[in-house]
Amino acid sequence: MCDKKLGSQTFALACPPSIAGWGSVVGKKEGDGPLGSQFDMVSQDSYFGETTWEKAESSMQRLALSHALEKAEQPAGALDALFGGDLNNQCIATSYAARSLNVPFFGLYGACSTMAESLGLAALLLDGGFGSFAGAVASSHFCTAERQYRMPLEYGGQRTPTAQWTATASGAVILARNGPGPYITHVTVGKIVDRGIKDANNMGAAMAPAAYDTLKTHFADTGRSSEFYDLIVTGDLGRLGKALLEELFREDGMELSNYNDCGLMLYDLEHQDVHCGGSGCGCSASVLTGVLLDGLKSGQYQNILFCATGALHSPTALGQGESVPGICHAVAISNTR
Amino acid sequence: MCDKKLGSQTFALACPPSIAGWGSVVGKKEGDGPLGSQFDMVSQDSYFGETTWEKAESSMQRLALSHALEKAEQPAGALDALFGGDLNNQCIATSYAARSLNVPFFGLYGACSTMAESLGLAALLLDGGFGSFAGAVASSHFCTAERQYRMPLEYGGQRTPTAQWTATASGAVILARNGPGPYITHVTVGKIVDRGIKDANNMGAAMAPAAYDTLKTHFADTGRSSEFYDLIVTGDLGRLGKALLEELFREDGMELSNYNDCGLMLYDLEHQDVHCGGSGCGCSASVLTGVLLDGLKSGQYQNILFCATGALHSPTALGQGESVPGICHAVAISNTR
Repeated sequence: MCDKKLGSQTFALACPPSIAGWGSVVGKKEGDGPLGSQFDMVSQDSYFGETTWEKAESSMQRLALSHALEKAEQPAGALDALFGGDLNNQCIATSYAARSLNVPFFGLYGACSTMAESLGLAALLLDGGFGSFAGAVASSHFCTAERQYRMPLEYGGQRTPTAQWTATASGAVILARNGPGPYITHVTVGKIVDRGIKDANNMGAAMAPAAYDTLKTHFADTGRSSEFYDLIVTGDLGRLGKALLEELFREDGMELSNYNDCGLMLYDLEHQDVHCGGSGCGCSASVLTGVLLDGLKSGQYQNILFCATGALHSPTALGQGESVPGICHAVAISNTR
Repeated sequence: MCDKKLGSQTFALACPPSIAGWGSVVGKKEGDGPLGSQFDMVSQDSYFGETTWEKAESSMQRLALSHALEKAEQPAGALDALFGGDLNNQCIATSYAARSLNVPFFGLYGACSTMAESLGLAALLLDGGFGSFAGAVASSHFCTAERQYRMPLEYGGQRTPTAQWTATASGAVILARNGPGPYITHVTVGKIVDRGIKDANNMGAAMAPAAYDTLKTHFADTGRSSEFYDLIVTGDLGRLGKALLEELFREDGMELSNYNDCGLMLYDLEHQDVHCGGSGCGCSASVLTGVLLDGLKSGQYQNILFCATGALHSPTALGQGESVPGICHAVAISNTR
C-alpha cells in the first residue's frame, strides 16, 4: 500500500471524499452579522426552546446535523461514524446531541479547532475505506462558554480589548465516499504550539503561532503557496491574531494572500461590540457551513484551505500558572479531486 | 476500493497494524493492587514530582508514552499522529502532555472509553494508509477526577456502595503499520446508550447497557462468539456493572464467557476499600498496557476483545436533570493477522 503521507504532517487523500451536505445554525447576534442571511437557521431565542443554555447548544448541533443530512439526502442511520465536539466541560453538547442520533460516535476535544479536527478525521476514515458516510459537527454557545471559561454572565464583567466573542453557532458536514464534490483532498494535522501566553482573554495571540506552524507546514508538505487557494481561512484568530499571523509570515518574507479569519467574517466589528471578533468552535463551523461550502458549490471558490484554531487550556490550568497551548488543523477543500 | 465495514458498526482492518510498544504508569494504590508488580512504573507520590495533581496526570501520560516509545524503539518524532484524552475539564492532562512531544495531535473526549477510542482511531489511521506510526494514550487521576466530578477531597465525603475508585494511572500504546504483532484486527465503534441513570456514583449501571450494545453488535457483525476470545474485558463497569452486563446477556440466553472487567482486575476489592472497583480512563488503559498486551506477547492469550466504557455526562448536565449517556468502543487484538 502506498503511503498517503506528504512531508511531515500532511495526509493526501487518495480518493477524496465528497461533501454531500452541510448545515448551519446560529443565534440572534450571529444572525444580525454580515453573514446572517446565509445560515440555514437563525434563532432569536438563546435557549433554542430548551430550559438551559447547555441543552440549547445540543439542540443547535441536532438542528445543524439535521439540515446537513437533509441536503445530503441521507437519514442519520446512514452515518458510519459521527465525529464531534464542543467547548463545554466533558463535551456535553455533543454527547447529548449524538445520543439522539443513535450512530457510531467518536467524541473529540480540540477546542475551537474542533470543526477541522472532526472534518479531517471523517475524511481520513472514508478515504481509508471505512464506510460510506461520515459526519462532522461542532458548536459553541456564548452563554455556556462565558460562564465556564471566564465569568458568569450575571456578573457583568468588563471585557478586555483583546477579548473575542464566543459565537452561538453550530455547523455540521456530511461526507460521502463518492459524489460530485466539493472534495476534501488534504489534511494537515496540527502540533501543539505554545508561546507562553497566559491571558484567557487573548486567544488570538495564543493561537496565531499554531496557525503559523500548520500553514507553513502545509505549504512545505504540499508544495502549494497561498496563491493556490482562492481563500485561506483561520478559525477564530480575531483581529489581533490575524495581524500576528500575517506578521509572522511577513518576517519570512511572505505575504499571506487570499487570507481571512472566520472570527472577522462572522460579525461586523465596527457595530457589534465583539472587540477582536468571533471565537468558539461554532465560529469557524458556521462560517464554513453557512458560506464557504456554498461558495465552492457556486464556483465562487475552487480551492479553499480551512484552518480551525484551538486553545487547549482550562481555567484550572491557567489558575495553576500554565500558559495556553494552541493548535491548528488545516483541511484543503477543492472542487476537483 | 473494497469496503472494510462489517455489519452495522464494525470496521475490519485490511492490514492490521502491529502493536509495537506499550507503557503503563500507576499511583501507589494501584501499585498495591494485585497487578502492582506488572506496571512499568509505580509512583509513591500522588504528585509525580509536580506541584498539582493536574500536572501530575500530564506527567503520567508523558511517562507512559516514553515507556511505550522506548519499547517500540522509536523517538516521539516518528509518530505520524497521537490520539489521546483524559477526564479533566478541557482534557488538559493530554494537551499539556502532547505539547512537550511536538507531534501531530488529535484530542479526544470519550471519558473512560478513551483508551479504546484512541487505540481504534490510531489503528484505522494506519490501516487507511496514513503514515507508519501512531500513538494512543489515556489517563485518569483519583484526585483530579474526584474534585471535578464529585467533591473536593478535603470535604471527606462518604462514598456510596455503588461508587468506584478513579484509578491514578495512564497507559500508552504505539502502533506500527508493520510488525510482528499483536495486531488490531477489528474496531467496533460504540453508539451512545442511555437508560436513564442519573446517579453520578453509579457509573457501572450507566455504562453496562452501552457495553451490552457494543458487544452484542460486535458478535453479530463479526460472526464471532464470546468463546472466540481468550479474554473479553470491559473498561470499568465495576462489580455492579459487570453483573448487570452478564445479566443482560443471560436474558438473551447467552453466557458471556472468558469475561472480566478492568475495574475488578486493578484492585483487590476485599482489602482496598474501592467499593465497586476501579474506574477512570487510566483503569482500562493501565490494565491493557500493564498486563493484557504482555499476555498476548507471551502467548497466554491469542485473541482479546478490549471494550473500554465511558460515561459522557458532566456535573453541570446532571445538575440540570440529565441522565448519564454511556458509550463503549471495542477493539479486537490478536496474535495473528
